[in-house]
Amino acid sequence: MSSNFGEVFRISTWGESHGGGVGVVIDGCPARLPLSEADIQPDLDRRRPGQSDIVTPRKEADECQILSGVFQGRTLGTPISIMVRNTDARPSAYTEMQTMYRPSHADFTYQAKYGIRNWEGGGRSSAREAIGRVAAGAVAKKILRTLHPGIEILSYITAIHDISVAIDPLAVTSEAIEANSVRCPDAATAAAMIERIKEVRSDGDSVGGVLECVVRGCPRGLGEPVFDKLDADLAKAMLSLPATKGFEIGSGFAGSKLRGSEHNDPFRIVDGQVRTTTNLSGGIQGGISNGEPIVFRVAFKPTATISRAQDTVTVTGENASLAARGRHDPCVLPRAVPMVEAMTALVLVDHLLRQRAQDALPREE
Amino acid sequence: MSSNFGEVFRISTWGESHGGGVGVVIDGCPARLPLSEADIQPDLDRRRPGQSDIVTPRKEADECQILSGVFQGRTLGTPISIMVRNTDARPSAYTEMQTMYRPSHADFTYQAKYGIRNWEGGGRSSAREAIGRVAAGAVAKKILRTLHPGIEILSYITAIHDISVAIDPLAVTSEAIEANSVRCPDAATAAAMIERIKEVRSDGDSVGGVLECVVRGCPRGLGEPVFDKLDADLAKAMLSLPATKGFEIGSGFAGSKLRGSEHNDPFRIVDGQVRTTTNLSGGIQGGISNGEPIVFRVAFKPTATISRAQDTVTVTGENASLAARGRHDPCVLPRAVPMVEAMTALVLVDHLLRQRAQDALPREE
Amino acid sequence: MSSNFGEVFRISTWGESHGGGVGVVIDGCPARLPLSEADIQPDLDRRRPGQSDIVTPRKEADECQILSGVFQGRTLGTPISIMVRNTDARPSAYTEMQTMYRPSHADFTYQAKYGIRNWEGGGRSSAREAIGRVAAGAVAKKILRTLHPGIEILSYITAIHDISVAIDPLAVTSEAIEANSVRCPDAATAAAMIERIKEVRSDGDSVGGVLECVVRGCPRGLGEPVFDKLDADLAKAMLSLPATKGFEIGSGFAGSKLRGSEHNDPFRIVDGQVRTTTNLSGGIQGGISNGEPIVFRVAFKPTATISRAQDTVTVTGENASLAARGRHDPCVLPRAVPMVEAMTALVLVDHLLRQRAQDALPREE
Amino acid sequence: MSSNFGEVFRISTWGESHGGGVGVVIDGCPARLPLSEADIQPDLDRRRPGQSDIVTPRKEADECQILSGVFQGRTLGTPISIMVRNTDARPSAYTEMQTMYRPSHADFTYQAKYGIRNWEGGGRSSAREAIGRVAAGAVAKKILRTLHPGIEILSYITAIHDISVAIDPLAVTSEAIEANSVRCPDAATAAAMIERIKEVRSDGDSVGGVLECVVRGCPRGLGEPVFDKLDADLAKAMLSLPATKGFEIGSGFAGSKLRGSEHNDPFRIVDGQVRTTTNLSGGIQGGISNGEPIVFRVAFKPTATISRAQDTVTVTGENASLAARGRHDPCVLPRAVPMVEAMTALVLVDHLLRQRAQDALPREE
Repeated sequence: MSSNFGEVFRISTWGESHGGGVGVVIDGCPARLPLSEADIQPDLDRRRPGQSDIVTPRKEADECQILSGVFQGRTLGTPISIMVRNTDARPSAYTEMQTMYRPSHADFTYQAKYGIRNWEGGGRSSAREAIGRVAAGAVAKKILRTLHPGIEILSYITAIHDISVAIDPLAVTSEAIEANSVRCPDAATAAAMIERIKEVRSDGDSVGGVLECVVRGCPRGLGEPVFDKLDADLAKAMLSLPATKGFEIGSGFAGSKLRGSEHNDPFRIVDGQVRTTTNLSGGIQGGISNGEPIVFRVAFKPTATISRAQDTVTVTGENASLAARGRHDPCVLPRAVPMVEAMTALVLVDHLLRQRAQDALPREE
Repeated sequence: MSSNFGEVFRISTWGESHGGGVGVVIDGCPARLPLSEADIQPDLDRRRPGQSDIVTPRKEADECQILSGVFQGRTLGTPISIMVRNTDARPSAYTEMQTMYRPSHADFTYQAKYGIRNWEGGGRSSAREAIGRVAAGAVAKKILRTLHPGIEILSYITAIHDISVAIDPLAVTSEAIEANSVRCPDAATAAAMIERIKEVRSDGDSVGGVLECVVRGCPRGLGEPVFDKLDADLAKAMLSLPATKGFEIGSGFAGSKLRGSEHNDPFRIVDGQVRTTTNLSGGIQGGISNGEPIVFRVAFKPTATISRAQDTVTVTGENASLAARGRHDPCVLPRAVPMVEAMTALVLVDHLLRQRAQDALPREE
Repeated sequence: MSSNFGEVFRISTWGESHGGGVGVVIDGCPARLPLSEADIQPDLDRRRPGQSDIVTPRKEADECQILSGVFQGRTLGTPISIMVRNTDARPSAYTEMQTMYRPSHADFTYQAKYGIRNWEGGGRSSAREAIGRVAAGAVAKKILRTLHPGIEILSYITAIHDISVAIDPLAVTSEAIEANSVRCPDAATAAAMIERIKEVRSDGDSVGGVLECVVRGCPRGLGEPVFDKLDADLAKAMLSLPATKGFEIGSGFAGSKLRGSEHNDPFRIVDGQVRTTTNLSGGIQGGISNGEPIVFRVAFKPTATISRAQDTVTVTGENASLAARGRHDPCVLPRAVPMVEAMTALVLVDHLLRQRAQDALPREE
Repeated sequence: MSSNFGEVFRISTWGESHGGGVGVVIDGCPARLPLSEADIQPDLDRRRPGQSDIVTPRKEADECQILSGVFQGRTLGTPISIMVRNTDARPSAYTEMQTMYRPSHADFTYQAKYGIRNWEGGGRSSAREAIGRVAAGAVAKKILRTLHPGIEILSYITAIHDISVAIDPLAVTSEAIEANSVRCPDAATAAAMIERIKEVRSDGDSVGGVLECVVRGCPRGLGEPVFDKLDADLAKAMLSLPATKGFEIGSGFAGSKLRGSEHNDPFRIVDGQVRTTTNLSGGIQGGISNGEPIVFRVAFKPTATISRAQDTVTVTGENASLAARGRHDPCVLPRAVPMVEAMTALVLVDHLLRQRAQDALPREE
């Protein structure tokens, strides 16, 4: 049950970094959606390794194949199975992982939990696992756009290491984000970030950062109090991604330093609609979307696998030192952008369909 | 499905702030656990209103009653129904909520989602809803202590408004936390925090803050990759509480500014056990507990309902001004402490039972 | 998770026959449904003990109380908690159950599973547990009637012991069913059935029988292939009721003796609609309702608790003989009628809301 | 969510009869189970078409491939993805299904529900869908045998059309069942059944029948009252298989004609164990296994697709006549045997793991 996500639009992902491949089964996708591999591949391409000179050079085309659930170009309402083969797996680069645990990686905890682990690469804890999420997220995005044409989900980097920049979530564009390899929409900051990433890589080290995500045009009324609040489900979705250490929505941690009179978002009638004049709530109040842009941030730690020597232990219980080989991202954030968007789309489409189910009786208005 | 939480140890909470009462049904509680109201009441008392001079004066004894699932002092393995009656409900104090939406409260979004809302108080979005969580959390804590006698869950306030203090999660004690009404284990800081809360209340205003939680003695191996990672489920649990704006584990947002070589927790063999010499991971790696203390922080916004006049709109679409009456906490954090502990216990007990189910086959060791 | 039923319209029942009471929490009920105790009480009255001279004389008014989820006569979209107190519990009548297992009752298996059981009556395995189902079923029926005014769910007895009668599911009426205490719509057969039940009761014995249920006016398209087929969910719902031994839909077991050319239901266009000229399918094809009446039958065994002496064993492992005291139904079927209707309504409303969620995209037609 | 089955050992199946293939993802499989394709293929071979002269001649090797979740011959505790490619798909044989609905098949209801259907064969309603179930069932069986070496699940045919035979569920062997192509362990009856199947096939017709299943050596205490009773989950599992019309456990429908004194299974102490001297309960009491053999029967209707001409309608609403082409089984029962065993194993392993989770506290005994 741990590789299932969603209540009505439910995905089951599978696959290890080294093995036959990775994939996803989507259950609960509405019928009659036009769908082909061409809807999915662009997001996979934004996630795949080897796409730029600041990510891992592992060579994977990550070409997806739809195996079921689509007939003559439209979804059948039956499960959609999507698969990507692993092609450039090099288990030989990981032989030292057979005998040692990488510090702050999942090697030790997987062994503790399961009594076994696939030491040829990250196994299930690898970022390759996210391929299934990104593929399903592309389907989710298409449903969202079909039902709410104005909806836009954009995520982008606002900090790498100690280089940060404030981005206006109302104005940011996909073009600006995709204009550089680090996916920070501010070109000057992006250049500095790229420089920093290259620097730490040449040091055999890694860096973390902060990613922001905005959903513009989200309909009101999504989110299910009390446990499945929209922000609670987004928090879970984000913390389920590898290397994440924090989540905040709207004002976030900084909001805890304000008074109520400063923090509350006043309501005003604008063009006959109830709107807020500020958005410290981040588009969600009481766990339900209020129609304002949803804005949240995710903290990513520096990549755990580095080539510098570190203290660790062997699987047989001796202290040791490890300088990891293998091909790794010096910074996970650029490739995390499509993952965050995918998880956001998955949360939103599930809540949208759930709200359709619940909102069954006629309204007076 | 929105008021259900947990996969194996599953709770269903119910109730509004104004109505017959609030409660919880626990499904999946192991049989043969000694249990009575006396196990539950202490945590409810830590949550109840009127417990000190910095919380709402609403007078509720919050006495719980176990209606099923217990026989001759032990659990039957059948659902445990626990109820608390509402006694000091004063809907008349909320008549203005009938016609206006409180800024940054859930009034507007509930109306948008459901087309109806209980305007006599916060309804389902009230902090009274947490009574069911706290009651179930007390049961969860007792199971955890029975199966892992060394386990301790402690949460405490580290910041109120701009007053903050660093607390050592390894050393903090329940006694120090409960020694003052704000539940900050540092006495001097607590006094300043209490002063600040009284100050803003007399201003008709409110403040937020940050709460930290530590789990000591948690067994290794809890957490289910990839979606039900232990930190992901904790993040959801925390963001499902009212007034929360952020969650971070271990190094959190600050960790995003470190290099991998600084952030990784080196492994060492200590007393024959694999331990880490630092704990920036916060006790969870790859979504699975590693046996080190689990440490996370939650950001709470200032209470939305304040008595100062604020811009808002009426339910019929006119701009208006609202100075809220009713009895409200000027700061939610002191009463959030038992809520956070309860949600933490619910996440842990669910994962502990899930791990029992999965770890079915003999281990070589 | 064992006392939860439904995916979108989800109920959690609780309670033992002897204890504080029994009840249900409904999560996922659409908002704005007019609802009060008066909508629920009639079905509880059809289930309650003491309603006629062929059922147990235990005196329970079974008056229900709605504790949450309803405001000013309409549902809020929040969980609806409904409770019925136990009043005429007589644990003293069950002291022998403390030391012996009733043959074919749940005493032994509960002890084997849980290592504890409430021996004061049937505990959780008592028919009182069904109160929560019947109450939730009444809410489900009201939603169904609101969304599909023509829908009717009727169940009735077609066999008691070896007395049986064929009833036309297209013509049967609620009035005919409720016209006698055994709830068989054929008056003459009903009289014979009642006679038989009284006979076996005076013998210290019990009888079983067969119940049929028809759903008329069910919309097409309900049921979720492949596991949550509508007939599969009905089968589970029925077998989850105490004392059931079998379920069959449409032609059932008899259908296994036909050839395909005899069994297939030919399609014809009638009034512009696709209809079948026979209904051996019982209204469901491929797990999905086809718009024809849904017809199924449920086999109930004779009540296990009888006053005749029977061979059994003690809890300490000695052979023994037991002649049960306590107040028991000589035949469970008359009171099973509202239970079957309730479970049917719960299955249908859940699938109706699920279909609303899934059928999200525009249809060409 | 409709293609997910199980709570703790959860499978997600996918695939249509004509398309890329069919498969299953197993989530929640315990780690460290020795597993390879060789454990799965034998059951797939018992299900596959073309295995004898009384089943469809479609030529599919149904060779399975494990794509994830297994490392060096043992399960990792991560999702196990298993795939079988479709190779002998002949959509051209189904062109008439594009314009007409087969009577009593799922064509019409799929169209009504989804507004689209894969008319190249049965699509998702095809018996090929069961491949995922059978593959997952083989994994489930291996876990069951590992944890309870004495457990045996055997299913066999007891009736084809009006030819039936009583089989002793305590004595039946796998060898006797597999000794003939119809899988009836009584050789003489089997010969007559095979004759009958060939006869109706040459008539362009089909037949149904009854299948019995026995589980010997099942541990006590499996099944979760009240909704997830073991018999309720078995009923759902069976009715989720194509062409099933009924389910009965133990005495079944015939049991409804007995008196309590005849139907109750007396308890006796045998070799220090609580046993029953009869087994009309069919091994389950109060929804929980009691340690006696679990015995149930499933009714299958005659195959819907026949080559005789039948009345039907076109997709555009005209009356028509259809004599189906394509390759179909004249009787589904022989190939249903491994499907029933697989679904039984899936139900049992899920309940076994759930019981492990719940039975967490020490027992007095």
